[in-house]
Amino acid sequence: MSKYKLPKGFLASGIHCGIKRFNKDLGLIYSKFPSRAAGVFTKNKVKAAPVLVTKEILNKKKSIHAVIVNSGNANCCTGWYGVRDAKKMIHAVSLALKLKFSNVCVASTGIIGRRLPLDIILAGIPKAVNGLSEKGLISLAKAILTTDKKLKIETELFNVGRKEVIITGICKGAGMINPNMATMLCFIMTDARIDKDALKTALRESVDQSFNSITIDGDMSTNDSVLILANGEADNRIIKKDTKEYDIFLKYLNRVTFELAKDIVKDGEGATKFVTVHVKGAMTEEDAKRVARRIATSLLVKTSIHGEDPNWGRIAASVGASGIEYIKQNKIEIWLDKVCLFKSGKFTNPQPARISRIYKQRNVEMLVNLNNGKKEAKIFTCDLSKRYVEINSHYMT
Amino acid sequence: MSKYKLPKGFLASGIHCGIKRFNKDLGLIYSKFPSRAAGVFTKNKVKAAPVLVTKEILNKKKSIHAVIVNSGNANCCTGWYGVRDAKKMIHAVSLALKLKFSNVCVASTGIIGRRLPLDIILAGIPKAVNGLSEKGLISLAKAILTTDKKLKIETELFNVGRKEVIITGICKGAGMINPNMATMLCFIMTDARIDKDALKTALRESVDQSFNSITIDGDMSTNDSVLILANGEADNRIIKKDTKEYDIFLKYLNRVTFELAKDIVKDGEGATKFVTVHVKGAMTEEDAKRVARRIATSLLVKTSIHGEDPNWGRIAASVGASGIEYIKQNKIEIWLDKVCLFKSGKFTNPQPARISRIYKQRNVEMLVNLNNGKKEAKIFTCDLSKRYVEINSHYMT
Repeated sequence: MSKYKLPKGFLASGIHCGIKRFNKDLGLIYSKFPSRAAGVFTKNKVKAAPVLVTKEILNKKKSIHAVIVNSGNANCCTGWYGVRDAKKMIHAVSLALKLKFSNVCVASTGIIGRRLPLDIILAGIPKAVNGLSEKGLISLAKAILTTDKKLKIETELFNVGRKEVIITGICKGAGMINPNMATMLCFIMTDARIDKDALKTALRESVDQSFNSITIDGDMSTNDSVLILANGEADNRIIKKDTKEYDIFLKYLNRVTFELAKDIVKDGEGATKFVTVHVKGAMTEEDAKRVARRIATSLLVKTSIHGEDPNWGRIAASVGASGIEYIKQNKIEIWLDKVCLFKSGKFTNPQPARISRIYKQRNVEMLVNLNNGKKEAKIFTCDLSKRYVEINSHYMT
Repeated sequence: MSKYKLPKGFLASGIHCGIKRFNKDLGLIYSKFPSRAAGVFTKNKVKAAPVLVTKEILNKKKSIHAVIVNSGNANCCTGWYGVRDAKKMIHAVSLALKLKFSNVCVASTGIIGRRLPLDIILAGIPKAVNGLSEKGLISLAKAILTTDKKLKIETELFNVGRKEVIITGICKGAGMINPNMATMLCFIMTDARIDKDALKTALRESVDQSFNSITIDGDMSTNDSVLILANGEADNRIIKKDTKEYDIFLKYLNRVTFELAKDIVKDGEGATKFVTVHVKGAMTEEDAKRVARRIATSLLVKTSIHGEDPNWGRIAASVGASGIEYIKQNKIEIWLDKVCLFKSGKFTNPQPARISRIYKQRNVEMLVNLNNGKKEAKIFTCDLSKRYVEINSHYMT
């Protein structure tokens, strides 16, 4: 039996309807029981139609029973048609499952600027409904992928009081992931009983320490959505904010989102390394994040890590280029694993062999201490390879 | 005769002293007559020793007679030693040319974090002094290159009143060029007679419309310096701010810096295309620049241009991701050459063949109209190729 499972009361399916040539491209999540839902969406000013429509649905504060999602076409930059098409997807699902329009959310990922092939999607929806099952998790997870190489699923099982609660998340990532959420879809299902307000806050906190702390290529997509559905079937005492139960729920939710975020980085287009950039000694957490992001998005840092070329000067240059006024060259310390490379304004000249060894690892850990405060932040990223350029030079053709 | 020439009273040389294995790596500029000088330097908080030392020299407001520059080693992150080494270079030049210490500037480019091989540089300086000649411009231009494939020289010849004036600039660029100046050295020599204040203002304006309007990979280096020396040998009536002569001088200075900046983009590491990103309809010029930069630094945009893959959705996504609050999806227009791709929130579906043709050109021109104001800006960049990753994965090894 798989270690991944759906929480109580959830069914899922994933089918091939024909948007993509071969792979699954239409997924459906269904909860027999009404779910509380919350979402976090892209901050891009150009938002895809399904993002606009789902935000509207969530604002109605009705219970959510289903989420329909397609891959292969982002339904973005499709104007007025796009919104209509997204709504037609919802409408078809609500008819087939005997729900109201506002009980269903929609999401899309894939190419921008092309109309959805609505006919084949609408023809696929009954198939997806028929396919719904307690064992549909893997199919669902497959149906949302684009250039991802690996499935991304996490399940956490824990107790709230005496009741067993499950949180299961699936997501898709690959390129264009940056700290403000990017071509990323994530659907989290839980049977926890939780107050709407607590659910919203927990999701936001959890996204911040996971998806908003990773970067692949610094781009931010038009379709990013993280949705959480909680149907209360675990029958625990309702979780409210500022309680012990909330902390437990958040802890396991964080595990799910953090593992999924790490999976995204590891599966970054062409990625061969997992890089942790830890910045401390900043005056504010935002400053620490800004420095960490600057390092994590520097093409020069990313290519040198890819080439296992210990060009640590590029890390120092990125710290200096972060635009934080109080950074002082002579106070910066740069560490790779347990080796200090830079201190008092100069390189410490550790044995080259020691440094090469660190660069050759699959996991590279960097620590930058600005020695100018007590705040810190971590950003996770991957290296930049020729394969990335290859994949993204010919996405459409 | 070359179309490039030194202004009156300037001598130059470029030699191989041994920092690099084969190519020229030490250059010297010398003006027999005292020059007014001005400089613009990197905004990186980590500044190389020669930048710190040259800024100090310029602050003394003495006349400048010489500039010594080496390539192959940036003398950066070398702590207290670095400053001493940079000063020793100046000292050696001032002795050899019978100048005062504060008559000489210094610059370096190359690898970060290694001590300068001072012995071979000091041994090279007398050779560089002996090599000084009116025909030394090409040698000098060669001596400052690192990964550049082409020489970068520009000469403009024009009249101020009845006097003929020359402005000649040389520079080095390649990777790591971003709008706030980056691994870039530029030395501009002119025989114009110009007021110190006017010289400073002209340089700043000129750098803004040239070097600060280009981007290769968005990184900002520790060594960037633009220096201008004006020795007054053209004997024109002194140029002061807010005069017709100032406008003429600025016009030709702009031509020199703009052509050099374009040369840098064309010679970007692995670059195969020259891309102009023109943003208009913004509320401020800064906003327009911010949007243009976001597009010009998007890896997804740069790789799709490289692959001649007309994935225009990525341009729209970059506009939306620029963080300008007043951007409205439905107001954005995106044009490629004379073809409108995006309007009223959706793609206009022009003939694919027309678009492919534009993407196949060596020069790609993008116009984004935010339709939300009257300000505009242009940023120049190149595509991102596998060759870029290759070059930067193994810079040290």
